[in-house]
Amino acid sequence: MTRTPAEALAELGVELPEVKLDPFYINYRESGSGQIHISGQMPYVNGELPAVGTVGADIDVETARQSMRIATINALAVGAHAVGGLDKLRIVQMLVFVASAPDFGGQSNVADAGSELLVEVLGEHGRHARTAIGVAALPRTSPVEVQMIVEALT
Amino acid sequence: MTRTPAEALAELGVELPEVKLDPFYINYRESGSGQIHISGQMPYVNGELPAVGTVGADIDVETARQSMRIATINALAVGAHAVGGLDKLRIVQMLVFVASAPDFGGQSNVADAGSELLVEVLGEHGRHARTAIGVAALPRTSPVEVQMIVEALT
Amino acid sequence: MTRTPAEALAELGVELPEVKLDPFYINYRESGSGQIHISGQMPYVNGELPAVGTVGADIDVETARQSMRIATINALAVGAHAVGGLDKLRIVQMLVFVASAPDFGGQSNVADAGSELLVEVLGEHGRHARTAIGVAALPRTSPVEVQMIVEALT
Repeated sequence: MTRTPAEALAELGVELPEVKLDPFYINYRESGSGQIHISGQMPYVNGELPAVGTVGADIDVETARQSMRIATINALAVGAHAVGGLDKLRIVQMLVFVASAPDFGGQSNVADAGSELLVEVLGEHGRHARTAIGVAALPRTSPVEVQMIVEALT
Repeated sequence: MTRTPAEALAELGVELPEVKLDPFYINYRESGSGQIHISGQMPYVNGELPAVGTVGADIDVETARQSMRIATINALAVGAHAVGGLDKLRIVQMLVFVASAPDFGGQSNVADAGSELLVEVLGEHGRHARTAIGVAALPRTSPVEVQMIVEALT
Repeated sequence: MTRTPAEALAELGVELPEVKLDPFYINYRESGSGQIHISGQMPYVNGELPAVGTVGADIDVETARQSMRIATINALAVGAHAVGGLDKLRIVQMLVFVASAPDFGGQSNVADAGSELLVEVLGEHGRHARTAIGVAALPRTSPVEVQMIVEALT
């Protein structure tokens, strides 16, 4: 891969959102060992959720995949902010929550929309351990939420 | 902040429970890198749950917030035990599970009851990365459960 | 404990499955600090799920415990592969997801089937911090999924 992560993002037409700091809530916390825990990221676009509801009941898989992609972009933005740039970022683990009807079993398909983006942008450094589960509900009835552990490349 | 964490706890009228050791079940595990993983904490008070049920169906947000605060106190007790005292404790990450009806989207509000306590007691060392999700059910039909990663201040 | 982990496995009649590598999906990721995050493990046996459904609705606790045991064996196989053998493996944390009906509160009982196996096989090195929760649904409507953090013994 000769593209930089920034070039890969541009080719995909993705722009990372600005990371806002809050006096109370924090976007991430770095442990003494260098693991950076990113707070659960929602698929906000300019403060709004593009879709709400339960996958397999109110909304379909494709809509959930779009929300998953956005939540992953938001997590990428926090991760890049934490390590000082996308080209220094390595993804370790992603935990994916999909608001799911009890008979919906396609969480891996939804989560793939985020995993694929990470590998497209970061290449080998974007590959990650992953767990995807279906939950009863998420904040503001978002269809997806993403928790990530990242670290700085040394 | 000139108060010690112990003074802050006393002002809040909070007493940490005694941490019991069990030959099989363990309360926490420290990794070689110094991250301390605390087992999922329930809102037990003297072995009893003050409330049970699903938020948004059986019980309301305020009741869930009270349970959240208790579960956080129990996690604080384990964390303080692990590092040798509250004044040596730093919170890294908190994962909050709220038993939720499918249309309940107030998990962040419930989780705030724990986040606020951590910052009240530990100040800057209490700030943490956080994820809050709504789950179908929790052990003994508890309304909340809290998982925490902490470390010792160096 | 004078048995080796391999001897303990043999006594239990358990054979670890072969760990398959995939160009896209990865089974685990090691952080720079030495924590190994294992991807969510399902109770697959030769690519098939022995049971599907929601505990407390479609399937009973004993069936769920059997699936839990299998998912834990699969996680053990990945962990042993990651560190170069069972005798070098230490379990740090296990996060257990049980597909649950809203009134089912027996997640700890289900999770115990995995915790017990880890201690039977690895002894003290198998003891772990644990969180067990009930979720709405899991990939392919599996009744359980297991996420683990492990490390190499030094």
